[in-house]
Amino acid sequence: MTRRNAFYAQSGGVTAVINVSACGVLQTARQHSEEIGKVYAGRNGIIGALTEDLIDTSVESESAIAALKHTPGAAFGSCRYKLTSIREHRAQYDRLIEVFQAHDIGFFFYNGGGDSQDTAYKVSLIGAELAYPIVCVGIPKTVDNDLPITDCSPGFGSAAKYVATSIREAAFDVASMSRTSTKVFALEVMGRHAGWTTAACALAAEGEGGAPHILLLPEVVFDEERFLAKVETALTRYGHCVIAVSEGIKGPDGEFLSASGPKDTFGHTQLGGVAPVITSLIGAKTGPWLITSSGRHATLPPGPMWSRPTRSVARR
Amino acid sequence: MTRRNAFYAQSGGVTAVINVSACGVLQTARQHSEEIGKVYAGRNGIIGALTEDLIDTSVESESAIAALKHTPGAAFGSCRYKLTSIREHRAQYDRLIEVFQAHDIGFFFYNGGGDSQDTAYKVSLIGAELAYPIVCVGIPKTVDNDLPITDCSPGFGSAAKYVATSIREAAFDVASMSRTSTKVFALEVMGRHAGWTTAACALAAEGEGGAPHILLLPEVVFDEERFLAKVETALTRYGHCVIAVSEGIKGPDGEFLSASGPKDTFGHTQLGGVAPVITSLIGAKTGPWLITSSGRHATLPPGPMWSRPTRSVARR
Repeated sequence: MTRRNAFYAQSGGVTAVINVSACGVLQTARQHSEEIGKVYAGRNGIIGALTEDLIDTSVESESAIAALKHTPGAAFGSCRYKLTSIREHRAQYDRLIEVFQAHDIGFFFYNGGGDSQDTAYKVSLIGAELAYPIVCVGIPKTVDNDLPITDCSPGFGSAAKYVATSIREAAFDVASMSRTSTKVFALEVMGRHAGWTTAACALAAEGEGGAPHILLLPEVVFDEERFLAKVETALTRYGHCVIAVSEGIKGPDGEFLSASGPKDTFGHTQLGGVAPVITSLIGAKTGPWLITSSGRHATLPPGPMWSRPTRSVARR
Repeated sequence: MTRRNAFYAQSGGVTAVINVSACGVLQTARQHSEEIGKVYAGRNGIIGALTEDLIDTSVESESAIAALKHTPGAAFGSCRYKLTSIREHRAQYDRLIEVFQAHDIGFFFYNGGGDSQDTAYKVSLIGAELAYPIVCVGIPKTVDNDLPITDCSPGFGSAAKYVATSIREAAFDVASMSRTSTKVFALEVMGRHAGWTTAACALAAEGEGGAPHILLLPEVVFDEERFLAKVETALTRYGHCVIAVSEGIKGPDGEFLSASGPKDTFGHTQLGGVAPVITSLIGAKTGPWLITSSGRHATLPPGPMWSRPTRSVARR
């Protein structure tokens, strides 16, 4: 078998662990030096191949490669760049072949989410359609855990731990002062179409009554009446209500609840801001619950609570 | 000297360390048992005194008291409750004296921010005005670090570490993919009138060019032109721009930049959402920088970047 070089690149939003995958590729390639020669890392994903901006990882020490496991960000730079098809943009693929040939690239590893897997697939077609033989492997990476076939994608575990920890921290604070202050808290969670990260918030709950009390997933149509009833139940039973809400929840009309937000510079509606939509709804529909997390002093509930007759202290 | 009991309570938004202050009070009181008898903790701050909802901490073991140092939330519950003056609400103070007398309270420790210190002061007046002798001590607690006299308040250090860590994490992600994706990232930081927490983000920068590149403090009037010039400088020099913006920044008209937000259930304007205001401004005034942090695929900048002539790889 002829030994050929490999190309590796990182793509899409970085996770806490994308460099761990990079480490795995580089260490494993070194263990198979009879098949794989050098591994060139593309700077900023596929852009690094198109611009021939390659990093020769073979000159790096074993310890530098191992250090990738605790290096944040994307060590080689990432990108959001969508390859169009060979039919639509043939010159782009000719350029890829030019660079691959110049460096004898026979293996293509692309580390990213759904669109990056699509890039790996498109590059693989240059073998069949443009007669350049190359082995293409997509390496999963996503916080949303929405990649088909994979069960638990690298990146999801870290995101799950982060949101579960965050909602537990916030829930302790809310529970600490819900009597006269914030009673309802909503944490907005990433995931436009997939509810895995929102669902991971449930890991924070230790038993009956533990926060979060309500999860709003993008896969389930938002039912205002049912939601408000659940909020009232939690407030009555536990004195406070903690909600994890996916940025992507939709109403019965199929529209994002947060769709009225501003558009980004490309005209995409920016999601985000669904938590205020949800908490405003609670304020408007269920009465003066204290729903502000940046609130100042509250007044006490009606009634002369502080003038109850003196009673003995439990353990006096 | 006659031995008298003490009252301790927690007030305001809890910090990561309010229970460490509680631990300090309880352990120190035990070391001075010739002067201080039992320490009663009020449940939910001053409300616990008004409703005689007291927790006798003397029955707790040394190890339970020591465990407060790593207990999250407010161990005894907190509140946002503002005492009005003796003149305005005399019955409330008569009630406090009634409860204090029933439990022989001669020391009052109140753990909280500016308004809680005001409560400690008002309670201290019952000595001079209502002839109930009591020693009142305010124990500082705030994430904003805006308490007079104190230099560095318990709670600020944890908040400072948290925001500095968060902006560093976000900056690594932005730097990783700024070439084709997000180039501008703004972290909104708490602190309506005090810029300490926003300023703490600067701890994340390790040297020239390190993020954050711009801090927007509430103490400094927002100057749009100067701000946009700084953004362009950062984008030109470093390829990305990371901003820490206080929720409380104001324009030359003295209005909050985010003041158009929704009001809470008490009619206070809810701050927050100033980061989108800032990033929209950049998008509108300086051209199509990629400012969305939830953005999807971007198109490459104009020009056939990928068709640059093949050049040799640096370390080939």
